[in-house]
Amino acid sequence: MSNTPLIISAAIVGAELTRDTYPNLPLTPDEIAEAAEEAVNAGASIIHLHVRDENGLPTQRVDVFETVTEKIRNRCDCILQYSTGGAVGTPVELRCNPVSLKPDMATLSMGTMNFGSEIYENTEETITTIARAITDNDVMAELEVFDFGQLETVMRMVKKGLVPERHHMDFVLGVPGGMAATISNLVMLVNRLQEGQTWAVAGLGRGQLPMAMHSIAMGGHVRVGIEDNIYYRKGELAVSNAQLVERVVRIAREYDRPAATVDQARQILGLSE
Amino acid sequence: MSNTPLIISAAIVGAELTRDTYPNLPLTPDEIAEAAEEAVNAGASIIHLHVRDENGLPTQRVDVFETVTEKIRNRCDCILQYSTGGAVGTPVELRCNPVSLKPDMATLSMGTMNFGSEIYENTEETITTIARAITDNDVMAELEVFDFGQLETVMRMVKKGLVPERHHMDFVLGVPGGMAATISNLVMLVNRLQEGQTWAVAGLGRGQLPMAMHSIAMGGHVRVGIEDNIYYRKGELAVSNAQLVERVVRIAREYDRPAATVDQARQILGLSE
Amino acid sequence: MSNTPLIISAAIVGAELTRDTYPNLPLTPDEIAEAAEEAVNAGASIIHLHVRDENGLPTQRVDVFETVTEKIRNRCDCILQYSTGGAVGTPVELRCNPVSLKPDMATLSMGTMNFGSEIYENTEETITTIARAITDNDVMAELEVFDFGQLETVMRMVKKGLVPERHHMDFVLGVPGGMAATISNLVMLVNRLQEGQTWAVAGLGRGQLPMAMHSIAMGGHVRVGIEDNIYYRKGELAVSNAQLVERVVRIAREYDRPAATVDQARQILGLSE
Amino acid sequence: MSNTPLIISAAIVGAELTRDTYPNLPLTPDEIAEAAEEAVNAGASIIHLHVRDENGLPTQRVDVFETVTEKIRNRCDCILQYSTGGAVGTPVELRCNPVSLKPDMATLSMGTMNFGSEIYENTEETITTIARAITDNDVMAELEVFDFGQLETVMRMVKKGLVPERHHMDFVLGVPGGMAATISNLVMLVNRLQEGQTWAVAGLGRGQLPMAMHSIAMGGHVRVGIEDNIYYRKGELAVSNAQLVERVVRIAREYDRPAATVDQARQILGLSE
Ligand SMILES: [Zn+2]
Ligand SMILES: [Zn+2]
Ligand SMILES: [Zn+2]
Ligand SMILES: [Zn+2]
Repeated sequence: MSNTPLIISAAIVGAELTRDTYPNLPLTPDEIAEAAEEAVNAGASIIHLHVRDENGLPTQRVDVFETVTEKIRNRCDCILQYSTGGAVGTPVELRCNPVSLKPDMATLSMGTMNFGSEIYENTEETITTIARAITDNDVMAELEVFDFGQLETVMRMVKKGLVPERHHMDFVLGVPGGMAATISNLVMLVNRLQEGQTWAVAGLGRGQLPMAMHSIAMGGHVRVGIEDNIYYRKGELAVSNAQLVERVVRIAREYDRPAATVDQARQILGLSE
Repeated sequence: MSNTPLIISAAIVGAELTRDTYPNLPLTPDEIAEAAEEAVNAGASIIHLHVRDENGLPTQRVDVFETVTEKIRNRCDCILQYSTGGAVGTPVELRCNPVSLKPDMATLSMGTMNFGSEIYENTEETITTIARAITDNDVMAELEVFDFGQLETVMRMVKKGLVPERHHMDFVLGVPGGMAATISNLVMLVNRLQEGQTWAVAGLGRGQLPMAMHSIAMGGHVRVGIEDNIYYRKGELAVSNAQLVERVVRIAREYDRPAATVDQARQILGLSE
Repeated sequence: MSNTPLIISAAIVGAELTRDTYPNLPLTPDEIAEAAEEAVNAGASIIHLHVRDENGLPTQRVDVFETVTEKIRNRCDCILQYSTGGAVGTPVELRCNPVSLKPDMATLSMGTMNFGSEIYENTEETITTIARAITDNDVMAELEVFDFGQLETVMRMVKKGLVPERHHMDFVLGVPGGMAATISNLVMLVNRLQEGQTWAVAGLGRGQLPMAMHSIAMGGHVRVGIEDNIYYRKGELAVSNAQLVERVVRIAREYDRPAATVDQARQILGLSE
Repeated sequence: MSNTPLIISAAIVGAELTRDTYPNLPLTPDEIAEAAEEAVNAGASIIHLHVRDENGLPTQRVDVFETVTEKIRNRCDCILQYSTGGAVGTPVELRCNPVSLKPDMATLSMGTMNFGSEIYENTEETITTIARAITDNDVMAELEVFDFGQLETVMRMVKKGLVPERHHMDFVLGVPGGMAATISNLVMLVNRLQEGQTWAVAGLGRGQLPMAMHSIAMGGHVRVGIEDNIYYRKGELAVSNAQLVERVVRIAREYDRPAATVDQARQILGLSE
């Protein structure tokens, strides 16, 4: 039983969600910052961040990321992780831009795939470009792996020096077109990691809670939040990101893995050096 | 996410434990019955039963099983599961005897193996003999599988009609000499089961809580209790069997899998027909 | 040990290969038909077919498929399997067209992915469109699965009726961007198939021979040919498709799985009904 | 594709086989030495050795091992590997004795289990005792692992210094009571090995040929011989051990893994230092 404190990452906004499907969706800088603070107070140590423009649409504009970052920093300490995924279809130059603000972490999606009826495009060139932006800005990469071949792509590209060797791994499971959120799949993925590699899992939809449970007991870390799953339980919308975080905290406490403080999370991830 | 109610089996006595290592160990019929009642009140629906003689030593004597059964029945409703394992070294005739009392269930261990520095002996002949006693008394078998080859033995012996096709499966993981209590091992085992087969896992020692967590999230069932693990957490003895049951109940509730009532457990296991 | 005759599929042309990298590449209808005949004589029962236009470029033109088909049919009996993959970038309408000629089989690629530095695009809509063309023409589909999530997509789309339930499965392993050609990966995939599902594996590059070996011993079927691998051994170009087929035939014979005749292959695949 | 030369171990006698079931069984020292020579000429580099007494019964008598060893050494060079398994039921002191002759290698069975209707007894104490004899005589151990838990026992006992860290691993699959000879099981086992660990597989009965095929393609090594399997193919007894070796050699040659010479085998196993 690993008793490393549990790093909880809160995916509080996302790029695809709208108020139509989730009325409590934070959109303005203030709303996002408030949601971040609540999540951190609930036990999250990483905020996985997407931002929205004046019309509530997903954007990779640097000024918006800057504003939101400032507002979050004013409210609470946390590890800020910018998404470089953008919305489906965002050009790669735009996806990279916010990394110049030097957040603690930034995501790096490791392959192209169907994402439901859309294509989520991450060519090798895109990956290389974003990886370079991340490295050049001295940011820590969180690699987003959606399918098994993408994990093997990580190894190939790390070996070639195209992807940073020092990274945090995130398995995003349950996208229609990627790997399903099953324990069998998670074990296959984790069994392929190098010894000592830190990892988290983000289960989509109804896969969120089971993946969190398994990860707690496997010594991994956890991502929850409305970006990935808007329900608290079947048929019942989550009240907030904080509510989803709180449940994970309670379960982790029963398991004797307390939620990591921000400082503990920095140390576990090697961000405090 | 499977929301089948969770069947919790409490292994409240065991055959090897002594008061030296676990002072609160129930030994007399009254103590055992009281421990059973507490476990059931805490949320267990199956009592996995070993009994002790006047000297506190493990015994397969029918009269002792009868006395304890009566005392438990007077206190609470539960599914009574007799161990036919006995202590290491108990002859097979003795191991079988209590089955004549027609408990709800009885265990059937599926192979010979090292059990730490001892041998736990279950030859094919032993298995066949105990299986016949179970079938002849119209009792439901819980198959105890400690290693991968034993699961393949189940399939082989079921095919030959030597082991009842209708059974509940219990993976007992963490015996030195058997398979370790890891999620990787549990997934391998569960992936080999027939569709629809009910199963539980009993993790030994510090494997108890992780195996329970995983099983809750996998749609399996759980065995806990001092027979398998005397600690509540590292360095802290469990106060009682009930305390170990209660934690599983709380986690399962967070997962929206309520602890099964005795009636629900009977239905899930097909004991109510 | 499964002694079902071994169905060998020969991928004799491909869409990406040029004479620069493989001088013996068959391009004209006559050359392709001759290569097909040689492969069949060597032991192949399925010809996996791409065709080329007057400039040697990959094409999905119906008239070219028709000409090549006629020439092959004049030379030998075989199961003709048209590729609907086209080259990277071919529009979906064109990819579908040759299916109207009602070959025995046609391929159906089950997802979008990086294919080296390119994107191989198969959106859910593309898959659905090609699947409909296949079904409407009463052709048998061979599903091309390049990564684990694509196998789960198969199950999802079969359940929805979007992909034919009766199909032959082909795992194409070793594409940079898909799953690597390892036995660990092949076992994971095969373990997820339904009982009785026929399957083959095509290992790319140096993965071709190992995947063939494993498949022979697992009761699967095999695809070889210069489309997937131009080397007979390290540093030594294959003389012909037939040479690659012959080695598999020899190994399969040692294993007591004779290469399937065309009639046997039809029967195993359910094409003779 | 690993092109390390293939170490073929020939199990030419065994402890349980009789002339009733296999008429060509070598029994006398001369017959055994002749069978060894034939196997080596066919391509084996290790002779896995059991010997028989004047009545053809299995024995661990030192003088018989000595006589047979001398006769083999007079005929050919090979790596001699003594079995310390003995027949089912042989006491541990007797099992150890021949190790004093300092063969190149000796076997060490890693657990107790059902072996069909018998028990094959290898308590932790037995393992420790034999391991000490092996180490004290500066012999290389081949660890015989029959089930998954036994592999975990290896790790546990190596860590405690009870089993030599430097060893060759042999998975013996297909014993009723142990793990079945399936590729799924072999992959699970191999995936748990340390990087660089040399290993072989011995498939019993009809599992012998499939396990050999897979191992060739996985970079492992192979044990064949009548001890494990008396049939060349279904319903046809093997003519000799050499015949079984020859088939593996032919397949390995097709795969470009030539059978290791004795010198190559010594080097691969680290015996030449
Ligand atoms: Zn995101
Ligand atoms: Zn028990
Ligand atoms: Zn093709
Ligand atoms: Zn032997």
